[in-house]
Amino acid sequence: MRLGAIEAGGTKFVVAIGDEEGNVYERCSFPTTTPKETVEKIFEFFDDKEIVALGLGCFGPINLDLQSDTYGYITTTPKLGWKDYNIVGAIKEHYPNLPIGFDTDVNGAALGEVYFGAAKGLDSALYLTIGTGIGGGAIVEGNLVHGLLHPEMGHMMLAMREDDHYKGKCPYHGTCFEGLAAGPAIEERWNRSAKELPENHPAWDLEAWYIAQALAIYVLTLSPKKIILGGGVMHQKQLFPMIHKYLQERLNGYIQKEEITTEKISDYVVYPMLGDNAGICGALALAKMAKSL
Amino acid sequence: MRLGAIEAGGTKFVVAIGDEEGNVYERCSFPTTTPKETVEKIFEFFDDKEIVALGLGCFGPINLDLQSDTYGYITTTPKLGWKDYNIVGAIKEHYPNLPIGFDTDVNGAALGEVYFGAAKGLDSALYLTIGTGIGGGAIVEGNLVHGLLHPEMGHMMLAMREDDHYKGKCPYHGTCFEGLAAGPAIEERWNRSAKELPENHPAWDLEAWYIAQALAIYVLTLSPKKIILGGGVMHQKQLFPMIHKYLQERLNGYIQKEEITTEKISDYVVYPMLGDNAGICGALALAKMAKSL
Repeated sequence: MRLGAIEAGGTKFVVAIGDEEGNVYERCSFPTTTPKETVEKIFEFFDDKEIVALGLGCFGPINLDLQSDTYGYITTTPKLGWKDYNIVGAIKEHYPNLPIGFDTDVNGAALGEVYFGAAKGLDSALYLTIGTGIGGGAIVEGNLVHGLLHPEMGHMMLAMREDDHYKGKCPYHGTCFEGLAAGPAIEERWNRSAKELPENHPAWDLEAWYIAQALAIYVLTLSPKKIILGGGVMHQKQLFPMIHKYLQERLNGYIQKEEITTEKISDYVVYPMLGDNAGICGALALAKMAKSL
Repeated sequence: MRLGAIEAGGTKFVVAIGDEEGNVYERCSFPTTTPKETVEKIFEFFDDKEIVALGLGCFGPINLDLQSDTYGYITTTPKLGWKDYNIVGAIKEHYPNLPIGFDTDVNGAALGEVYFGAAKGLDSALYLTIGTGIGGGAIVEGNLVHGLLHPEMGHMMLAMREDDHYKGKCPYHGTCFEGLAAGPAIEERWNRSAKELPENHPAWDLEAWYIAQALAIYVLTLSPKKIILGGGVMHQKQLFPMIHKYLQERLNGYIQKEEITTEKISDYVVYPMLGDNAGICGALALAKMAKSL
């Protein structure tokens, strides 16, 4: 089954051909310019590919409410020219009969890990990306969480660690998770690019402490069967054992599941299996889901 | 369709006969004694009632994992005699062919509000009970959230308000949501029974502040279409406008949905429509779901 995948980012678009097993056969990427130009490049790539469904994991915020007149729109983005752009409509007009799976990039990545990756076969998982920003996608009882809007997991307020007096980076919430722990916050707090901080720098212990605090909240609200941490910051693999330890400390034995209370936690909070393919495989997963609906 | 409902609490059991519209025809309650005695009272009540399904909303923690050998057990409760008791098994043995819907009391209450109450017809909602403890049940894309265990929403750590120096009441987490804002915490902090605190006491402003902080987290993780606040503390109706205001302040316009950003918020965070029938109607909802599976 030939599936099309689009990873729509604010900086670049990636388009690819793959299949329902998550294999990627061919890919191409180009910078995000105007909607018109960008969408024409999409058509150029897919026009002769005979795909049976298309998945689109998209930067946001986007409208996912099927009942809404503006379903399929990119909504309040500051990105020039893309505000209130009907991206699904533009594609549907060109390929009227093609099933299109549309969701946030991070929901796509979550679905990709469930279909093809670290959470394969599970009906419950959380995918978190920690990089320039922090976002999360969750699968609950086999479905992506949407609801009123879609989760914005990076914007929860966290309690500050006593020795941390950083004012926070988020223009909306100051010291929310993203404001305390995304890449730009690390850089501003320590006055150095995160990549330049040595592996044993105290920055990473603090980072793990905040990530674990957030994960505890997700465990207590979403009860995921697996937590997958991706994004640029998580390339710092030394974070994982610290996150495991702090998550156990914080939950303090209250959630009596060996996945959390024992050393099995190293298989509960994990690195993405799809690695840097998470985005495009996520879009493939959205295409696969659209085909099966 | 005659449905049976059991609201199993640590102090008392309520049993009832109702229907798929949420009507309750007959009810009876008795104290929670030993499992054997209590279960026999259940059989006495239902034996001649010709019900077609039974719902059981149960105090916890309980095992809801259908793949597990101990599905249907009450697990680590400190309640004498009930630890590791197979309550579903005991009922199944007596009524081998009856579909039984089994879940936490608070998941039942959430389902009840979605089937019959304030969230009727919605595929997404959050029900929170704030009383002696704090617990939450959520419906996501039409399904109750279970996952690894089940949510334990009252045990998230919250950031303390600057003017609050209370040490917290939770033996596991100190200043988690339950440790800061459940009834016993209010009483210990202010040295008076919550019921005796006048309506304009500063306790309620602080209470609303903590509740709003927790609701913001649920909005950002679960994205519910409706939030229903029940339990003894929420009998203090003056809390609602304060919660609405603090929730808007905390999200700070980031979730651009008029349900939250406008005065419509008074219809977004609401009191349970089923009121004190929440528990038993929740059990009816579990019976209805069991019958339709």
